[in-house]
Amino acid sequence: MKHNKKNHATFEILSGSKARARIIDQRKLPHSVQFKDLRRFSDACRAIGDMEVRGAPLIGVTAAFGMYLASLEAPSKPAAFQVFLKQSAKQLKLTRPTAVNLAWAVDKQLEMLSGDQSVLAVRKKLLANAKRIADDDVRYCRKMGENGLRIIRAMARRHPKRPVRIMTHCNAGRLAAVEWGTATAPIYAAHRAGIKIHVWVSETRPRNQGASLTAWELSEAGVPHTLVVDNACGHLLQEGLVDLVIVGCDRMAANGDAANKIGTYLKALAAAANKVPFYVALPSSTIDWTLPKGVGKIPIEDRGESEVLRIAGRSQGSTVAEVHLSCRSTQAKNPGFDVTPANLISGIITERGLCKPSQLKKQFKGGKKASAYA
Amino acid sequence: MKHNKKNHATFEILSGSKARARIIDQRKLPHSVQFKDLRRFSDACRAIGDMEVRGAPLIGVTAAFGMYLASLEAPSKPAAFQVFLKQSAKQLKLTRPTAVNLAWAVDKQLEMLSGDQSVLAVRKKLLANAKRIADDDVRYCRKMGENGLRIIRAMARRHPKRPVRIMTHCNAGRLAAVEWGTATAPIYAAHRAGIKIHVWVSETRPRNQGASLTAWELSEAGVPHTLVVDNACGHLLQEGLVDLVIVGCDRMAANGDAANKIGTYLKALAAAANKVPFYVALPSSTIDWTLPKGVGKIPIEDRGESEVLRIAGRSQGSTVAEVHLSCRSTQAKNPGFDVTPANLISGIITERGLCKPSQLKKQFKGGKKASAYA
Repeated sequence: MKHNKKNHATFEILSGSKARARIIDQRKLPHSVQFKDLRRFSDACRAIGDMEVRGAPLIGVTAAFGMYLASLEAPSKPAAFQVFLKQSAKQLKLTRPTAVNLAWAVDKQLEMLSGDQSVLAVRKKLLANAKRIADDDVRYCRKMGENGLRIIRAMARRHPKRPVRIMTHCNAGRLAAVEWGTATAPIYAAHRAGIKIHVWVSETRPRNQGASLTAWELSEAGVPHTLVVDNACGHLLQEGLVDLVIVGCDRMAANGDAANKIGTYLKALAAAANKVPFYVALPSSTIDWTLPKGVGKIPIEDRGESEVLRIAGRSQGSTVAEVHLSCRSTQAKNPGFDVTPANLISGIITERGLCKPSQLKKQFKGGKKASAYA
Repeated sequence: MKHNKKNHATFEILSGSKARARIIDQRKLPHSVQFKDLRRFSDACRAIGDMEVRGAPLIGVTAAFGMYLASLEAPSKPAAFQVFLKQSAKQLKLTRPTAVNLAWAVDKQLEMLSGDQSVLAVRKKLLANAKRIADDDVRYCRKMGENGLRIIRAMARRHPKRPVRIMTHCNAGRLAAVEWGTATAPIYAAHRAGIKIHVWVSETRPRNQGASLTAWELSEAGVPHTLVVDNACGHLLQEGLVDLVIVGCDRMAANGDAANKIGTYLKALAAAANKVPFYVALPSSTIDWTLPKGVGKIPIEDRGESEVLRIAGRSQGSTVAEVHLSCRSTQAKNPGFDVTPANLISGIITERGLCKPSQLKKQFKGGKKASAYA
């Protein structure tokens, strides 16, 4: 099927007497495209917790809208309203522990509660702020695209006779954000600019976001790509088949250590060993300035063993079926993220520009205040 | 089901007027244990090519027996018999390109053809030699077990209050050999010696030999273990949850560079980065003395995209079903092996003992003649 922006917006706020948000249920991709409307606070919690939406920026946007939905269900007495929203904020923050954008977006919404305002006024503010966070996401992803494009353009000049070969992991794509994505923003920008590219997509076990989401969205956009198992990425890098690696990020510490989908660290090690540049693309809302370093410090979500033991796919007859991969007695461990130390990262792509991990603080003038989302 | 040596021998030669070999069809594991008899030369080729048997030592043993089966089908005129067997040898060698044991075992059998002998005498020699290769495999795996046990025992002394935590990849287990396996031989030896161990089993996409075979055989043997996705291994090593890594090998160059199942290289990089010792266990028949180095030199089998795009598992109702993981337009690349450079290998465990990669030639006195299988 062809990409159709109207039908396939990753996240869309639909107005009405009570606004609702339309999402794609990403657990159903790539086998079918199903939309869901988030109308209640519990819908937003479920969408994040069950990974109907995923990807750090999209989690943030969904959480911000979730706070608006909570305000519709809150008691109308101002004091009780405040207590209810603070309680809702806590609940939302518990749905996923690693992505910092979640807490960031919820806290942005809590700031709307301050002062002496009517409940109605706060609701309006929460909705407007959720829309602003979504709009900012689009704008910042576009900026990351422009900033990353410079790297790809330079590679293309060096190798004019063949495509620039880019490796990515998981889905830091348009499905991880409202538009363009983070790691894919430079890829889409290069494709639109007519630069020949080829993308290595690692399947990203256990949830296979590479195979299910990244391969699907690149296919929709007509970007040449090839799927590989995660295990193959070291070999491709060693064989000189990759010009650069670009991944997304779920939480970056102030020193540039980057928590991202499990398996990112292995790619970073292989890229460094083979002198292939390794880039992390993220909006500044993903930087956790409260953490001086990330390795051993960023909480890593343990997602439970069922994602490892079972997998879903399209069975004969095009229905989606789940199969069990191991023998019945096998138990599994499932850490959802790993932390890539800053010394393995060649450059960080943000809405502000490109920088080395060591320049990160300087680029953002050293703290929260400089966050471009602020 | 409990392990029962009689029922679960990985490879067994059954005598009769025409000997046959009984194998476990490993593609059916862990969901069911199905035996197959190899009675014709084409059975042996199919068993290796379709991965009913896999693992470098077991491929060698099966190929040796395949040469005996070819002799049963060869024309009885001595000249034509010789031509037929040489042709069969070529066919067998083409079934899998990476494991050197395959060519090694076939060449061992071709040596039986020399001199002026009756067809009947050659057949007898081919059978006896196939049995000897199988018996040697058992003996050498046992030796590897004893040699690797010293490493695990030393670790256990250092950490008396907790299990020694060993990571492995793919299946270099009893299912990869006739008995005890290569990488698992030290694990089973430690378990029998009463040393507390815990094994991290990486699932080993795309064929999931870790999840399907290693987890199954460790479970049968009562060895504590936990399954993880391949992506998780860097994180486990970084978090200090692994004391040593032991993997098998499909072909080792004379300098110690080791071709093994795709993904091994990534584990070796992560082990080195986190100062965790990384061992390769192999019988000397896996060393290719004709190759001075391995990186970029060992031919890497490309196994076709279907293993990446589809996966089989136990569906509801306990039948085995295959599901398709990506959207219909996605194409994949599937290199079956990668090469770990010798500088990432802490030690090599063979039937002769333990050595550093740099000591390999010295240990085997520099060439083919010293091969312990000779």
